[in-house]
Amino acid sequence: MSDTRPIGVLDSGLGGLTVAHEILRLMPGERIVYLGDTARYPYGNRSDEVIRAFTLECARELCKHNIKLLVVACNTMAAVAMKIIEQHLHDVPVIGVILPGVRAAVLRTADRKIGVIGTHATIRSSVYKQSIQRIDASIKVYETSSPLLLPLVEERMFDHDIARMAAQFYLYEMMDGGVDCLILGCSLFPPLFEVVQGTVGTRMQVLDSALWTAKEAQDILTALDLKSGSRDGGVERSAFLFTEKPEGSHRLMELFYGAPLTEYSIVAINRGTV
Amino acid sequence: MSDTRPIGVLDSGLGGLTVAHEILRLMPGERIVYLGDTARYPYGNRSDEVIRAFTLECARELCKHNIKLLVVACNTMAAVAMKIIEQHLHDVPVIGVILPGVRAAVLRTADRKIGVIGTHATIRSSVYKQSIQRIDASIKVYETSSPLLLPLVEERMFDHDIARMAAQFYLYEMMDGGVDCLILGCSLFPPLFEVVQGTVGTRMQVLDSALWTAKEAQDILTALDLKSGSRDGGVERSAFLFTEKPEGSHRLMELFYGAPLTEYSIVAINRGTV
Repeated sequence: MSDTRPIGVLDSGLGGLTVAHEILRLMPGERIVYLGDTARYPYGNRSDEVIRAFTLECARELCKHNIKLLVVACNTMAAVAMKIIEQHLHDVPVIGVILPGVRAAVLRTADRKIGVIGTHATIRSSVYKQSIQRIDASIKVYETSSPLLLPLVEERMFDHDIARMAAQFYLYEMMDGGVDCLILGCSLFPPLFEVVQGTVGTRMQVLDSALWTAKEAQDILTALDLKSGSRDGGVERSAFLFTEKPEGSHRLMELFYGAPLTEYSIVAINRGTV
Repeated sequence: MSDTRPIGVLDSGLGGLTVAHEILRLMPGERIVYLGDTARYPYGNRSDEVIRAFTLECARELCKHNIKLLVVACNTMAAVAMKIIEQHLHDVPVIGVILPGVRAAVLRTADRKIGVIGTHATIRSSVYKQSIQRIDASIKVYETSSPLLLPLVEERMFDHDIARMAAQFYLYEMMDGGVDCLILGCSLFPPLFEVVQGTVGTRMQVLDSALWTAKEAQDILTALDLKSGSRDGGVERSAFLFTEKPEGSHRLMELFYGAPLTEYSIVAINRGTV
């Protein structure tokens, strides 16, 4: 059976484009509808209540596009709002970006010490710690919110002393503690991969969840027999929606998608009117 | 005549509390209704269209409180949305946070070189440059957006090497160019006053607009004969509204208000429902 409905990818902004990219790389026959809530990004400092309200609103918007699978690509959304999405959207299977990264880290840690960096909301939720210790309660988890890293990505300061110093500031305790596996728990962090890996050295493996999340999407579509047999997928047949014009952020979109992404639409979600 | 209606102070988040504080210090008989759009803060990376829509929505909410003067305390709101506020709200006089700072800087610069740091949206608007050169076209204006400074305030890293390095990164060109007067063009920057002044040294005077904005509010109320003759004002008689619970930000509120601020209410503006 061939199911040509699109896969929905939900994010608070642009970072989830890495997940969209990996999905289309693994499954070039699929189409994606991406929704990034750029009008209200970033979510990471908001209260749980507001994150849940915003996320549900966006998920409902995405479901209007007749999606066969919903991938929550934003760590903050997945950390705080997974339950409420599952409660309200019964008709579509949902996966988040957190568990695939957790499983990859648990498989890789030799010293049973995993580190996680992310937004305030993601770290406050303890979702990484709980998910890791549900698999193996003996693993020690070091969690640190790292808000300074976000503007470093926006400023494209990947190879600047400030980036190295900020990475050191957030990670020295994990290095001291002997963490051997670090999860980048925010979809905007991948561009900092090299400066982070350079800071922690070879003893610590740095994991970005995009690839594992794409693999999990593939597994689920296969298991539920929802894969597209079409050759008519890919980025040209996908739709990229944002809640505000990502002004001045073409270079950022390229950064996350790995290629220029010039076609997109704007949807209005609770934007108010002028 | 005594007009006991409150003064409305509008901000995208918490920074405008410095302006509210100065207003009550100068005019202890006045009451304030403060509205901070913490659910959608920060505004500084958004498109002009969205900033205008969000700002107008908040201004209308604030006008429901029968205010006699509207003070736009957020630089991004004032830079991008002053016109649309004035177009839509006819019944209340409006002042922004930008012109008072501009006038103070123009009076103080001896070498006719003024620097401005602020959000992307504020700097993109060129409002500081235009306002300064409308007063004196011969003044040279150096403008730089400085997004790294915001999370430094959130992290309370006022005395950290990263703060000094970030200040240097954004200001070395102005120091080189001989700027002698620097406007902190974002209401969240005042806590960085000392690290900025320490970086630029004694040759450059650093200006924060809160005090001048409060003085302008006082002048306008006096000119329009709208001052309160009451002794029944002050912080206890004022109302502080936020669009989301400022979770974990009590310390930040104290930082901006200069004293603990424990009483506040939540208003729902386009929050969606769960």
